[in-house]
Amino acid sequence: MATDLDRLEPNAQRVQDDLTELSQIHDPASSGWTRTVFSEPYRASREWVRARMADAGLTVHADHAGNLIGVLPGRSAAAPALMTGSHTDTVASGGRFDGMVGVLGSLEVVRQLVENDVRPDHDLLVVDFLGEESNDFGLSCLGSRALAGALTQEHLDRRDHHGVRLGDRYASFGLDPSDVLRAAGRFGPRGLHRYVELHIEQGPVLEERGAGIGVVTAIAGIRRLLATFTGRPDHAGTMPMGDRRDALVAAADAVLAVRQEGCGAPVHGVATTSRLDAEPGSPNVVPGLVRMQAEMRSVDVDWLSAAQVRLTEEIARKAAEHGVDVDLTWSLDNDCLPASPDVHEVVSSVADSLGIAWEAVPSGATHDAVHIARLCPMGMIFVPSRGGRSHCPDEWTDLDDIVTGIRVHGATLLALDRAR
Amino acid sequence: MATDLDRLEPNAQRVQDDLTELSQIHDPASSGWTRTVFSEPYRASREWVRARMADAGLTVHADHAGNLIGVLPGRSAAAPALMTGSHTDTVASGGRFDGMVGVLGSLEVVRQLVENDVRPDHDLLVVDFLGEESNDFGLSCLGSRALAGALTQEHLDRRDHHGVRLGDRYASFGLDPSDVLRAAGRFGPRGLHRYVELHIEQGPVLEERGAGIGVVTAIAGIRRLLATFTGRPDHAGTMPMGDRRDALVAAADAVLAVRQEGCGAPVHGVATTSRLDAEPGSPNVVPGLVRMQAEMRSVDVDWLSAAQVRLTEEIARKAAEHGVDVDLTWSLDNDCLPASPDVHEVVSSVADSLGIAWEAVPSGATHDAVHIARLCPMGMIFVPSRGGRSHCPDEWTDLDDIVTGIRVHGATLLALDRAR
Repeated sequence: MATDLDRLEPNAQRVQDDLTELSQIHDPASSGWTRTVFSEPYRASREWVRARMADAGLTVHADHAGNLIGVLPGRSAAAPALMTGSHTDTVASGGRFDGMVGVLGSLEVVRQLVENDVRPDHDLLVVDFLGEESNDFGLSCLGSRALAGALTQEHLDRRDHHGVRLGDRYASFGLDPSDVLRAAGRFGPRGLHRYVELHIEQGPVLEERGAGIGVVTAIAGIRRLLATFTGRPDHAGTMPMGDRRDALVAAADAVLAVRQEGCGAPVHGVATTSRLDAEPGSPNVVPGLVRMQAEMRSVDVDWLSAAQVRLTEEIARKAAEHGVDVDLTWSLDNDCLPASPDVHEVVSSVADSLGIAWEAVPSGATHDAVHIARLCPMGMIFVPSRGGRSHCPDEWTDLDDIVTGIRVHGATLLALDRAR
Repeated sequence: MATDLDRLEPNAQRVQDDLTELSQIHDPASSGWTRTVFSEPYRASREWVRARMADAGLTVHADHAGNLIGVLPGRSAAAPALMTGSHTDTVASGGRFDGMVGVLGSLEVVRQLVENDVRPDHDLLVVDFLGEESNDFGLSCLGSRALAGALTQEHLDRRDHHGVRLGDRYASFGLDPSDVLRAAGRFGPRGLHRYVELHIEQGPVLEERGAGIGVVTAIAGIRRLLATFTGRPDHAGTMPMGDRRDALVAAADAVLAVRQEGCGAPVHGVATTSRLDAEPGSPNVVPGLVRMQAEMRSVDVDWLSAAQVRLTEEIARKAAEHGVDVDLTWSLDNDCLPASPDVHEVVSSVADSLGIAWEAVPSGATHDAVHIARLCPMGMIFVPSRGGRSHCPDEWTDLDDIVTGIRVHGATLLALDRAR
């Protein structure tokens, strides 16, 4: 393996050129480097990705779920496929690295393999998963979810705030919704061997600790909260303060309670309120209704469960003080998912043998790996994010760090290829 | 005067029928009894009002500012006009009484005068002022403001959240914007004698104290606040709590500070946050930007000024604790305006002579009277609002209370007609 590792040196300029070209395909009407799922820039970018996959020597097809899959055939016709990949969609006002580093980094690995005549035993699949970022339908990881058989008719019936069904969005993107539901498990009897994903950390830990890469221990579970506060709309000039049932005041208390819960987490745990919509919103009316959207994340399931109970009680208690009714709907976006110990072991051994400092880190962000974990053992490799910034235009990872990540990623894929 | 008062007994059924008919003209796509300015239901309702004015015996015209003015000619050609009126537009999801009681109650007074051959000395003007409620351009009292010469080109250049100019909204409603700016002071050298307006209280004081009517002492001043909180958008799953600059957390603290200021007011004072808009609003992004809309009202100018200073400091202090920048823009919607002592005296004397219990009350709500006060002495008569509810579909005043108000209103107009 040492020989292979020496030969597989990523071409930094080529990686830089790819990142630059892909980032140019974005929504001109939005700030940042926006390329949301189902948008025209996204459609255009995936034509670009498909062409780059073919250039790299992969046989490319799109599956029924809209995932772009490039195949480098392996030597063993009987072996299950080794899969890697990530995504190329962004959040609104997003950055140029989240997802792209994994897709383009994997392409660079393939180019090195082809250029050096290194042919893996297993088929190597490089996947650009459809729509990984959470979308207007409140759903993330569309492509990997469908591949894992976890996308349902209920999901397709969800509507965005314009009233459009997710199924119809698929259709207008050229994908038959009934096909999407049949996209699961199309790997034949051989199945999948391993999945490993290269991604930016999106947090500040690696930078703070001076680590070259992060070896992911687990992906955080997410509890999402939709709270509806129902008070009473009154004239804002005439209703005395003591007689009000102000839904926005109750919601403000809830925002602070959510933050307090996150700050009190004993382990890696965060809690965020991302949105409050007050009705009627007129300057002279006391808000009678507020909808709030919040979430908590942790790799500690016990803390998540206990925090959910505490927060439910605290929000209801405060709302009652304000004479406001509250309806709380919690949902599990994904449960906490440990990485496969054997993939973790391979990645950390590879980093050690390459002399690259690594840290074992949890992932606060969800990734396609969460869903592919249903199909085979999975692991993830993180590269540092400057200042921990992500999901914003300032998102940044130095090219040197990306190249280091690609070296570890390539060597890991080769090592996994040789593992039983 | 006693003879006139006895003869002027309002026809309750006629008032009820008017209120019912007018309330039927509302936006079917909105909850409540919505008839916002410039909307199609509003256009239709004003045709109805124009017809009722003519039926009552008034000579009707619309002025350059879009106010419907019905004239009952007085005996003295040299006397300035006596004006009354109110408005027939509503807030979104509004009720059936706010404004309508004053317009329809004044029409009932006119009908009694005509039916009893009571002809006033002064011309009696009954005005249905255009668009009294605060609109999408952040402006209230369009018609009375224009009549008082206080509507400006700056106002016409304001844009709503669709980017439409107020001037263009006037034009699409059939009103020439340049005419609107020339609508002021068209009462000739005789000017206006007095203005009195009948209105629902929109607060709970009269009901709590068992008063038949309220005699308004002053109309509250309003300070409006637009605050922009600028934090930093980060990935909600990966950025540790302590490293965040969460704009929504800072805004939540501000909501509670606004409420605290209102609750601490030593006099009639209220403070309300009506809206928070968090960006980007995605469930997995820490809010980087929040826009907040709030206001304070009081008839005590000193408290308003001091509270504004305290709130500015408190909001900035809390935001700084969260690492969030805040930009605060205060504006004066209208300053506190005392009612004319002589009109106040006439209304309370009339109520006494009719044996109707009255309370001297401030108005927390703004009214067209604020602007007409630039043209002549003004006063207002309130009738009780059940539970103090207003600007909501539940807004209610008993017909008996409305009739009591109309009796006082009619007798007040006659008394003012005879005043020097």
